Amino acid sequence: MFHFDTDYMEGAHPAVMQRLVETNMEQTPGYGTDHYCDKARGLIRQACGDETLDVYFLVGGTQTNSTIIDALLSHHEGVVAAETGHINVHESGAIESFGHKVLTLPSHAGKVDAHELAQFISDFYADETYEHMVAPGMLYISYPTEYGTIYSKQELQQLKSVCQKAQIPFFIDGARLGYGLSCDAADLTLSELTSLCDVLYIGGTKVGALFGECVVAHPGQLKHFTPLVKQHGALLAKGRLLGIQFEVLFTDNLYFRIARHAVEQAMLLKQGFISKGYQPFIDSPTNQQFFTLPNEVMDRLAQHHTFEMWGKRGDTHTTVRFVTSWATKREQVEALIADL
Amino acid sequence: MFHFDTDYMEGAHPAVMQRLVETNMEQTPGYGTDHYCDKARGLIRQACGDETLDVYFLVGGTQTNSTIIDALLSHHEGVVAAETGHINVHESGAIESFGHKVLTLPSHAGKVDAHELAQFISDFYADETYEHMVAPGMLYISYPTEYGTIYSKQELQQLKSVCQKAQIPFFIDGARLGYGLSCDAADLTLSELTSLCDVLYIGGTKVGALFGECVVAHPGQLKHFTPLVKQHGALLAKGRLLGIQFEVLFTDNLYFRIARHAVEQAMLLKQGFISKGYQPFIDSPTNQQFFTLPNEVMDRLAQHHTFEMWGKRGDTHTTVRFVTSWATKREQVEALIADL
Amino acid sequence: MFHFDTDYMEGAHPAVMQRLVETNMEQTPGYGTDHYCDKARGLIRQACGDETLDVYFLVGGTQTNSTIIDALLSHHEGVVAAETGHINVHESGAIESFGHKVLTLPSHAGKVDAHELAQFISDFYADETYEHMVAPGMLYISYPTEYGTIYSKQELQQLKSVCQKAQIPFFIDGARLGYGLSCDAADLTLSELTSLCDVLYIGGTKVGALFGECVVAHPGQLKHFTPLVKQHGALLAKGRLLGIQFEVLFTDNLYFRIARHAVEQAMLLKQGFISKGYQPFIDSPTNQQFFTLPNEVMDRLAQHHTFEMWGKRGDTHTTVRFVTSWATKREQVEALIADL
Amino acid sequence: MFHFDTDYMEGAHPAVMQRLVETNMEQTPGYGTDHYCDKARGLIRQACGDETLDVYFLVGGTQTNSTIIDALLSHHEGVVAAETGHINVHESGAIESFGHKVLTLPSHAGKVDAHELAQFISDFYADETYEHMVAPGMLYISYPTEYGTIYSKQELQQLKSVCQKAQIPFFIDGARLGYGLSCDAADLTLSELTSLCDVLYIGGTKVGALFGECVVAHPGQLKHFTPLVKQHGALLAKGRLLGIQFEVLFTDNLYFRIARHAVEQAMLLKQGFISKGYQPFIDSPTNQQFFTLPNEVMDRLAQHHTFEMWGKRGDTHTTVRFVTSWATKREQVEALIADL
Repeated sequence: MFHFDTDYMEGAHPAVMQRLVETNMEQTPGYGTDHYCDKARGLIRQACGDETLDVYFLVGGTQTNSTIIDALLSHHEGVVAAETGHINVHESGAIESFGHKVLTLPSHAGKVDAHELAQFISDFYADETYEHMVAPGMLYISYPTEYGTIYSKQELQQLKSVCQKAQIPFFIDGARLGYGLSCDAADLTLSELTSLCDVLYIGGTKVGALFGECVVAHPGQLKHFTPLVKQHGALLAKGRLLGIQFEVLFTDNLYFRIARHAVEQAMLLKQGFISKGYQPFIDSPTNQQFFTLPNEVMDRLAQHHTFEMWGKRGDTHTTVRFVTSWATKREQVEALIADL
Repeated sequence: MFHFDTDYMEGAHPAVMQRLVETNMEQTPGYGTDHYCDKARGLIRQACGDETLDVYFLVGGTQTNSTIIDALLSHHEGVVAAETGHINVHESGAIESFGHKVLTLPSHAGKVDAHELAQFISDFYADETYEHMVAPGMLYISYPTEYGTIYSKQELQQLKSVCQKAQIPFFIDGARLGYGLSCDAADLTLSELTSLCDVLYIGGTKVGALFGECVVAHPGQLKHFTPLVKQHGALLAKGRLLGIQFEVLFTDNLYFRIARHAVEQAMLLKQGFISKGYQPFIDSPTNQQFFTLPNEVMDRLAQHHTFEMWGKRGDTHTTVRFVTSWATKREQVEALIADL
Repeated sequence: MFHFDTDYMEGAHPAVMQRLVETNMEQTPGYGTDHYCDKARGLIRQACGDETLDVYFLVGGTQTNSTIIDALLSHHEGVVAAETGHINVHESGAIESFGHKVLTLPSHAGKVDAHELAQFISDFYADETYEHMVAPGMLYISYPTEYGTIYSKQELQQLKSVCQKAQIPFFIDGARLGYGLSCDAADLTLSELTSLCDVLYIGGTKVGALFGECVVAHPGQLKHFTPLVKQHGALLAKGRLLGIQFEVLFTDNLYFRIARHAVEQAMLLKQGFISKGYQPFIDSPTNQQFFTLPNEVMDRLAQHHTFEMWGKRGDTHTTVRFVTSWATKREQVEALIADL
Repeated sequence: MFHFDTDYMEGAHPAVMQRLVETNMEQTPGYGTDHYCDKARGLIRQACGDETLDVYFLVGGTQTNSTIIDALLSHHEGVVAAETGHINVHESGAIESFGHKVLTLPSHAGKVDAHELAQFISDFYADETYEHMVAPGMLYISYPTEYGTIYSKQELQQLKSVCQKAQIPFFIDGARLGYGLSCDAADLTLSELTSLCDVLYIGGTKVGALFGECVVAHPGQLKHFTPLVKQHGALLAKGRLLGIQFEVLFTDNLYFRIARHAVEQAMLLKQGFISKGYQPFIDSPTNQQFFTLPNEVMDRLAQHHTFEMWGKRGDTHTTVRFVTSWATKREQVEALIADL
């Protein structure tokens, strides 16, 4: 049985694992104050092309989103996101549990539109009762999105421009960042992406790490962040585990090389489906692929492969999600296509 | 340089690490729904002597305390704890960030007294304005305490009795549980301890795991706990990492064997200091030892060893904490004593 | 200049004011424990036709919604409401500030549909990842709605039935309750309305009181409510002021008599607009009336009357809201129509 | 039966009540945007001797404390207060419900000591683990305190100096401000008091208003305060009711004249007790007086007067609180003394 359910079904990339084993018995101080974290912070700054960046390591995606958003918002503000955004749908109310409303914009295959954002903000302040409403206090997007799609450089520039005009920070959830930046459709680098936002997190859990997310912030954006991370229960005691992993992932470009591998398997899978006559439900260039299948085809595939139901299409068809990862083997994809 | 600062300076016990490596490339479903977690839950129930227990795995101590306390309290209630309790001092306001007040009792070498607890509750309800005050909604203790001390079975029975009479849950923070239960002064088993409280967490981070805490709850205590764990950002995507670690730790009694080793090193250290004429600041039977040293002695030791300042005693002396762990070697302790 | 902006532009009904003056120098205990509150609670129970009801008095609408919703929801739950619901739009994030998400359903002229609610709940539990999502924990509706519309008895029975099946409480925000129950289209009594929901609040601020909202709850619904009201800052020191006002309003049916007066003026206004050729934007049977006017007509009216802009319709027209109250005089409405 | 339980047992001062009646049928816009509030804000600025002050009106004390503290603190900060402070004891956890910890200092007859505050802050930052602790983010005191005592000008200057050095705001809860500033022991004016703190609230509920508290803040201290007040449920719809009351209270010095009356009655009461051989439990110069009485004396007084128990002193004595107000008559006090 091969699994295409999601991209966090294996442990860590073997190089990461090996380094954790090699360093296992060393004694270091806790909470990210060790030399591995220092080294990793340096490598991340280098990869992001900016020596002034603040870099923090947290454990998982939900806590990273919740802590960053809590740090960026004032009490009277909410976070603007696509209605399909992870923070609005799949985080069990983590954002609200810290007192913040998620203000939703329409989703365009997972993406928000800069014009709609601008209109939303402008309508807000045009409303005479705006002090009785939750103010748009920051923008949240995911790159790639929950639908595997990515923003173009121009779209990001437009979003940035709207945020700057409204003087609100622009935060990018990069839980699957590697898979986005390494796909053929990506038209910008990590360095360019960093320069276009105020805060970004580089996902490790889904891209080669055992666990861990790396927060990158322009100076002054995340004030008093360490006590806030602790308060959110997101400060790992053995913080060096995060530093070690990101050091490995950002040495010799490993992070993007393994992400590229996953994307290549996803493209193979996509072409396989297309060649058998299926059109993508969403045209995703990254490691998540969506197809609407007749139920009998889906059931047949399910005998040897697992994947996620994404929604019924009437009584006869179902949209299904297939996800590849850094660990997916070409043979697994070929077997899936063969079974189609 | 040898480090006695704390018990989370190394990675994981080699047996834990080895198992993580062996299972690394396996694909499993996420969030603790895998077979490793199932197996570990079974082993934990066995070790706790109760097949009906609910068992959950979280990542770190602060998030575990914060999530459990949030689950147990109603809005109008607070958590009663020693004023020295970890939740009152060293969690950056995590408990309050979810809306709950910490109600403090005096600390007796880190412990709360059952009579003082009973009096506190009785005074509360005797106050005519009690509806304007935060109600005592649960009891929090740590075993062992932040001072390395432990409660006797009788003391725990008395606390349990007060809690039962007041109909409030009794929660034990066992971040260092192994070091408590495996010391000579301990007069009860894990099974007995479990039966004396409503919710307990068995600390992994400080006792052999890379990270991870195991929550054990009597049925019905932690309602709708999984979404709450997710909301608190404490639900690990690759949940199997926690299951694997606890499976190893609770196979062949490894958890208590390695904890016992740490305690033996601590006793060696303690006897060493006593034999050189120093009396313990607190009489701790576990892996944390406290001594008040002349500053010149402290400075001399600091040339080859690290440890934590616990408080100045006038201008000439300082109380210092030494912590051993499952990884502490006998030679390290002997070198420390030799340097004394 | 006559004002039709909203229904809280005057002070209190003269009979309420007079009673406040008469009782002014009396000394009573605080926080609603006085004999006026007791008497008012009895009158409210009588009006609601159920002697077992719990009755509480709070000061304003937002705090009443926020306190009730906080009392009814568990941490992992959210409140289901129409996307136009007051709690979702005009309470500055009060619900979220206490940790709860507002889960929105489509608005049908301000109302939610029972079938859509049932589908929402059923879809939620059908989703395999529902533990990562905010559970529908209660239903919030307003009667009348923010658009002046009201639910029929049958619609309320259907909503109640869905809530019962899902085992979630059904809460009705009656900030303008009097204007709803006293209109011609209303097909149920206060007593019937009470029996169809779990918690209800009877609005005083907008219907004759100086301020004050009366919460009516079936037994067991609002546990430990008094400390929660205090925590939310909603427990008035001189609680008797609320009791006195509701005693007057619920003596000799004053509450519904003055509400009926407001509705009659609104109907006069509505007929006046229709007779001059304008069709209502929303067909409201209560004290809020909505018309789309050519901008030059709107500007002309604005010379002698005030009202609220409700939204632009292109460059030439605007939808406008006119609100009558217990204090609106027939001559004011006639003057408005004459100026049309 | 005469009541000395507290100072909010009557309604409003007759002049306040009369003005509410006179203005009752006027139509004004809501939420404090009316001309009465404007006028009152001007009078308050004048009384405080500073035209640059921001002035807001809220309804009650708990909501005022909770909203101001929420506005002043960052997420990682707590509010420093005497352990007897109202916010720490009698607000049902309102401060914590918005995520903030109350950090307590010893109470000296209700007051905090500037040296202890300075030490607390200095100890905090000297602790290596301070990022794991809740930072002292502001100072809260009450003037007069919960024990009727007042700070001297010098004590306030010292507190201000500590706060300035630590760069934290200094907030004064003036729920009973009038009774403090108008007593013989007061050595500063409202204007001087205002200049010594960053935010202050002038209590109306206990000093002549029906309800209402007036927040006075130096520019820039309370950012985005209106939406926060709304979020906390503390924005009164008919805001003009607050403006009208404070206009009356701050016209012709009424506020301080009626407060002075209460203090004079309290001094009469105090002298009466002293003349009969009782010494004050706390030497309060304001409208709250505390005496320890033999239980049989207490019981005898209780036949014709009500007052609050403040704590048992063994089996034979009880400390009792007597409170006068703007409404207390000299004959009531004389009757009490006569019954002694």
